[in-house]
Amino acid sequence: MKKLILAAAALFLCAGAWAQQSLTGRSNIVSPEIHPDNTVTFRFRAPKAITVQVSGDFLQGVRAADMKEGENGIWEYTTGVLPSELYNYSFIVDGISVKDPNNAYLQRDIANLMNYFIIPGGKGDNYLVHDVPHGSVSRVWYHSDVMGKDRRLSVYTPAGYEDNPSKRYPVLYLLHGMGGDEEAWLSLGRASQILDNLIAQGKAVPMIVVMPNGNMLHQAAPGEDGSGMYKPYNSGSFDTSTEYQFRDVIAYVDSHYRTVKKASGRAIAGLSMGGLHSYEISLNYPKTFDYVGLFSAALGVERVPENAMAPGFYQDIDRKIDVLFANKPRLYYIAIGKDDFLIQANNAYRAKLDAKGYKYEYLETDGGHIWRNWRIYLNDFSQKIFK
Amino acid sequence: MKKLILAAAALFLCAGAWAQQSLTGRSNIVSPEIHPDNTVTFRFRAPKAITVQVSGDFLQGVRAADMKEGENGIWEYTTGVLPSELYNYSFIVDGISVKDPNNAYLQRDIANLMNYFIIPGGKGDNYLVHDVPHGSVSRVWYHSDVMGKDRRLSVYTPAGYEDNPSKRYPVLYLLHGMGGDEEAWLSLGRASQILDNLIAQGKAVPMIVVMPNGNMLHQAAPGEDGSGMYKPYNSGSFDTSTEYQFRDVIAYVDSHYRTVKKASGRAIAGLSMGGLHSYEISLNYPKTFDYVGLFSAALGVERVPENAMAPGFYQDIDRKIDVLFANKPRLYYIAIGKDDFLIQANNAYRAKLDAKGYKYEYLETDGGHIWRNWRIYLNDFSQKIFK
Repeated sequence: MKKLILAAAALFLCAGAWAQQSLTGRSNIVSPEIHPDNTVTFRFRAPKAITVQVSGDFLQGVRAADMKEGENGIWEYTTGVLPSELYNYSFIVDGISVKDPNNAYLQRDIANLMNYFIIPGGKGDNYLVHDVPHGSVSRVWYHSDVMGKDRRLSVYTPAGYEDNPSKRYPVLYLLHGMGGDEEAWLSLGRASQILDNLIAQGKAVPMIVVMPNGNMLHQAAPGEDGSGMYKPYNSGSFDTSTEYQFRDVIAYVDSHYRTVKKASGRAIAGLSMGGLHSYEISLNYPKTFDYVGLFSAALGVERVPENAMAPGFYQDIDRKIDVLFANKPRLYYIAIGKDDFLIQANNAYRAKLDAKGYKYEYLETDGGHIWRNWRIYLNDFSQKIFK
Repeated sequence: MKKLILAAAALFLCAGAWAQQSLTGRSNIVSPEIHPDNTVTFRFRAPKAITVQVSGDFLQGVRAADMKEGENGIWEYTTGVLPSELYNYSFIVDGISVKDPNNAYLQRDIANLMNYFIIPGGKGDNYLVHDVPHGSVSRVWYHSDVMGKDRRLSVYTPAGYEDNPSKRYPVLYLLHGMGGDEEAWLSLGRASQILDNLIAQGKAVPMIVVMPNGNMLHQAAPGEDGSGMYKPYNSGSFDTSTEYQFRDVIAYVDSHYRTVKKASGRAIAGLSMGGLHSYEISLNYPKTFDYVGLFSAALGVERVPENAMAPGFYQDIDRKIDVLFANKPRLYYIAIGKDDFLIQANNAYRAKLDAKGYKYEYLETDGGHIWRNWRIYLNDFSQKIFK
């Protein structure tokens, strides 16, 4: 047994040696420490630093909170009591943004890396992994005839999918925002955890969730794309091809998964740019989706009507709205935060729908154009579809 | 068109606002910049810093190289000509390890985060995404009867798997090292790119690659595990259950994928602790694998013979070696770096095999206990199996 421990220790030390990039290395520092009363302590070792701050979305009214230096150059900060949620943070050491070396839990938002933690006991429970049956998450490649290239797609299949070979499932097409990619809803959105938990509780029906990549200049997320080290966000996502080639996505999914191949078995929802895409796709492919969700949608973007890639795609929008609502979608869902910079554009669209007497469901939450809201909207929307 | 650009700009600005954690923010700084002559320039903006260094595995003989401050507080360093490879790096700003905010390409090695880039034109091409048919990568959950819990598993299925429903495929079981998880071979090991490229070139046969999680205290990688925010490496991976429950992994794979269900259709290989696991599993499940790969294997770890979890598992090892080689494995493969701290233990094992006249293939490379070598071994090994 001693030898085993020694060997393990040798491997441990070795790991420290090969991981040459880390100065801080592995340590016994616990950060973040979530206390039983839902306060959280952050710790960061920086004996030579002049100021260390923590910046995070749990802070109220301030951009960053000063940490205090204690023994051995370890800086500390303890929050007040935090409501149950998923929170992001980084440290700021003498003005430079630094990730917490003691927290391996990370999310990338476009080009920006952040640590995260989850406070359980409420909303945060929706985003935690629980001891429930888990769906599978696959990254697959479909061929887009419109784009003339292969593109990457994330697909969630619910628990039981593999073991019920004759059962067919409805599909939620779930679209990311500008600069995001096919990983965004899984990482930042915790989509697989949200669905696992809702389905296990009987609050959502088992469904497939398809998360395409809406940046047409690229095939896939950073590291999975064939075009080299592109920088997220320099990608000019607002072109027409995302919407126009969407039939290729549906064709791939309907031919490779056991789907319900009609409008009653299809929902489309997206955040920000993906909300605009959901709006446009649902208008241009009528009778395809019985459920539409616009999450903080980037409405009000004026399109070029005579787009060569997609002739007619941005013409007769009002008529297309009439057609869509004449088909009586089972759910047309609009959600946005009170402080979202897109709320006026969404209010204008709602006024248009109201004037025509078209029915939709509306959810207005606190906060702005943030992932916290999009997780809430997904959790709400997915309980209301395919029922 | 103007409105479209304005709207896109508004979203861009907004993204800057919600990504509150970044001080550096989005910028036009290019880093790393890979020049046509295979030199690389790193850039980092830190107007108030006293020293900025870059630390990376491309440096020869030094731990870190000093960067020079230029205009606008942007520090720079340009490497010499680098051979084609995948390289890792971080910045060190006044002694603190910092990720490159202009490079969204990141790998997590256990608890240590690193940026990466790939120099094409040689070995690096094995790890790049090319315009070839791509396999699918799934994260699935299997139930381990031995452990009494669900566990997460990564599975690569080669291009064409979904479209050839009557074809059966051989399976490579590919195991990670201590502190790693079911993501390690995909992220650090670039396993799906290596296999995509080799299969497209006709150098490897289409195969399924199964990457289980070998840390039995946990179910899954950080963020996907039900036990909360565990810290990678505090996990005591060297217990017997990984090997003992391996039959649960094989049973799941054979019942959920179209596999060749016999020794000629199974390979097992692993790095470091996963090399030890491959050694032990192949000895204790004879006639299960015709191909065994030990990559920098952590041999020489003394086990408790009378292990209660797995009676007899660590007894009669020499006899089990005789049985394994009496079955004439088609390939028994040992690979290690010249500077690996485990080379003596591997030499001792090879001497034992040599004394008995048991055949194996041996590859010795430069360097130590590092991912660069494990990618090379996977690229080599996977060309030699199932043929």
